[in-house]
Amino acid sequence: MTKTDILIIGGGPAGVVAAVTARKNNPTKKITLIREKERGVIPCGIPYIFNRLNSAEKNLMPDKPLEINKVNLIIDKLIKIDPLNKKAILKKGKEISYKKLILATGSEPILIPIKGIDKKGVWQIKKDFEYLKKMRQEVLKSKNITIIGGGFIGVELAEELSSIKKLNINIIERSNHCLITTFDKEFAIAAEEELKKKGVKIHSKATVKEIIGKDKVESIKLENGKTITTDLVILSIGAKQNIALAKEAGIKIGKSGGVRVNNYMETNVKDIFAIGDCTETRCLLTKKDIPVMLASTACHEARIATANLYKKKELLKNKGTLGTFSTFIDNLALGVVGLNENTAQKKGFKTITGTSEAPNHHPGALPNTQIIKVKLVFSKSSGVLLGGQIMGPESIGEMINILALAVQQKTSIYDFGTLQIATHPLLTASPTNYPLITAAQSALAKIN
Amino acid sequence: MTKTDILIIGGGPAGVVAAVTARKNNPTKKITLIREKERGVIPCGIPYIFNRLNSAEKNLMPDKPLEINKVNLIIDKLIKIDPLNKKAILKKGKEISYKKLILATGSEPILIPIKGIDKKGVWQIKKDFEYLKKMRQEVLKSKNITIIGGGFIGVELAEELSSIKKLNINIIERSNHCLITTFDKEFAIAAEEELKKKGVKIHSKATVKEIIGKDKVESIKLENGKTITTDLVILSIGAKQNIALAKEAGIKIGKSGGVRVNNYMETNVKDIFAIGDCTETRCLLTKKDIPVMLASTACHEARIATANLYKKKELLKNKGTLGTFSTFIDNLALGVVGLNENTAQKKGFKTITGTSEAPNHHPGALPNTQIIKVKLVFSKSSGVLLGGQIMGPESIGEMINILALAVQQKTSIYDFGTLQIATHPLLTASPTNYPLITAAQSALAKIN
Repeated sequence: MTKTDILIIGGGPAGVVAAVTARKNNPTKKITLIREKERGVIPCGIPYIFNRLNSAEKNLMPDKPLEINKVNLIIDKLIKIDPLNKKAILKKGKEISYKKLILATGSEPILIPIKGIDKKGVWQIKKDFEYLKKMRQEVLKSKNITIIGGGFIGVELAEELSSIKKLNINIIERSNHCLITTFDKEFAIAAEEELKKKGVKIHSKATVKEIIGKDKVESIKLENGKTITTDLVILSIGAKQNIALAKEAGIKIGKSGGVRVNNYMETNVKDIFAIGDCTETRCLLTKKDIPVMLASTACHEARIATANLYKKKELLKNKGTLGTFSTFIDNLALGVVGLNENTAQKKGFKTITGTSEAPNHHPGALPNTQIIKVKLVFSKSSGVLLGGQIMGPESIGEMINILALAVQQKTSIYDFGTLQIATHPLLTASPTNYPLITAAQSALAKIN
Repeated sequence: MTKTDILIIGGGPAGVVAAVTARKNNPTKKITLIREKERGVIPCGIPYIFNRLNSAEKNLMPDKPLEINKVNLIIDKLIKIDPLNKKAILKKGKEISYKKLILATGSEPILIPIKGIDKKGVWQIKKDFEYLKKMRQEVLKSKNITIIGGGFIGVELAEELSSIKKLNINIIERSNHCLITTFDKEFAIAAEEELKKKGVKIHSKATVKEIIGKDKVESIKLENGKTITTDLVILSIGAKQNIALAKEAGIKIGKSGGVRVNNYMETNVKDIFAIGDCTETRCLLTKKDIPVMLASTACHEARIATANLYKKKELLKNKGTLGTFSTFIDNLALGVVGLNENTAQKKGFKTITGTSEAPNHHPGALPNTQIIKVKLVFSKSSGVLLGGQIMGPESIGEMINILALAVQQKTSIYDFGTLQIATHPLLTASPTNYPLITAAQSALAKIN
């Protein structure tokens, strides 16, 4: 039987960060990572294998961080965890004894019971290199593609595929708008406008009745009676936690279907931790379960688990998950953090919102100037920031992280009023009109 | 005699933000702004009138915010403040009585006693539209230009002018490196490398002995004996506060030469406030005077003054000035906030630093990927962030503001260890290797 100190199950972002940070925290321990597939893929990069990366190979997760950090990599399938004897049993027969086990088994895309869903030409976003390679070939051979589900993955796929001239792209979205579960309406609509400019057809308030075709997909029939000619269907309707192994080992599963963990990422079973998509997440702001499955969240949890493996550290515990998203649709970047106005109100918060807009250069006459739009949501009672949304040029990708930090550091409407920031003509909005400050001021004016 | 409630002296960023926010705070008051020049210029935009903006006109400060906010604009020179009778006397004879006076008289470039400095062809960076228009014409007629002073303005000018093919650009810098008073050496050197790539010749550890020429500049002689052929000289060696009027009115001037103000931006004279370049600034971290003259600082002070004009607001006072700078040199953006390692140690802080680097996209194979480099400086005793430096692509312009907020919100090395951020393949580094987190982790490893 092989022995290891720290055993990590899963080679996605959570597993890799766990391995790397476990090494940083434990220079002399033996660390082993078990991954099922020969080669891992970068999950967030999947939409971009079709055009921008121009290959699935370029989206492979590098194994170099594991090598550098002397992590023992085993390619095999875990078939059983034996928590009593602290060992893991692999498909090829091997047994590994561990001191600390970290479950990072991830998630997989869900299927819905639509008639015809088993036809050839229906694809999912699987984190599987060989599958994606084949899928890429099929996509490039197609003409009419329908994406079911207008969340982040669906929208990003649609945008990427719409850059390939010969493709006609349709999105079918159940709600009124794409991205509407995370963004307020005005931001969701702006994202849709960009997609439409690229020729994407959005069918909102629509559900699929049937996928039609002999054995291969030929069209999609919607509940509203419409028929969409389609060679290829991509499902992007959500994911479910991979928890079979955990469940079998007697690890507690929460109501939301993920592994239940405490603030240190410990499960109910001694010396077994769980991180990433396979775990439950509780909202930093509401303390309620939220369905967040993000690589950035997974990495956050990995850093916390490995900091607390051998000794609990109060300062490095999980205070709750902050939903933080950004996306990029045909030169419009959109970011959102925490609660939007709609969700905040649904959760019972009384809110004050502030909005603003400003050019991203000053003077605005400088080349390549774009408009930044900001919406901030503050708690009316405490004045503390509950969330924010920003859209505009690429710099929004980092600007939204100012708000991410702001929520985590309990930044108030007054702190924004006295915020000092760096500005530069070629890099940011003007100091006279920096939109995070002016948005807060417009909210503050509603209090006074 | 004209009467006004709020009288603002100066039409730069401080004055304009004071006018606009005074209006937001006081919907019914009469607000008057006095500006000496017919047309104002955007100070930070001046380096870019030569090429990117391609005109001085495009860098004019718009008067629209004043119009929209019903601010009475007077173009005249203030010649005297009479604090006893609460009135201001203008050059054209007009007298204006005020309830609250805000001094935003700014700064002007300093001259140094170099032999030949009064020759034709020696220019300064004056915030004066007509002067800049002429200067622009002369610059474009030149071939060899020497910039004296390698601070932000000097470096930005050099970079802009080096884009004009026929120009040869020299910088003369007293210190070992350009920008070395704000950045640590490795960042200053990186900036210099970019300038050199664009053909700029940097003469460091050099001072000017004499500006030579008949009546027009022909060459510059350095103390080290070197001679530089030069048609045109630009001085960018610093600025001094415009305080003559304040002094005459009995307003206290601090040791650093700026108007002394309290946390609410009040001077020692009742109902007279001072903001922007003409005031003293005290460092947020050291509480000592620091020579910061930035439009962003001026705007911050304007917001504070106008929030406290009629009623003091504890939550909207000035906690001290945070030095926040960003610049952009030939596609390399650099930002710095708070103390760098060198200044922190000089001020007596024991520090731990962490560094990291990461591609700004993930996977790094995506088009236009650049490297981000981060250096964070934490207090060894408290673990709190004292400052940070970042360089890389344009997104650094906003990324540095994450650190600006972090310093202001007393963010610790542990808060960075549990930081949750939004990442996206096309917009940010990977969640597995987000450089602000990994830099903090590398610092944390030095504690453990």
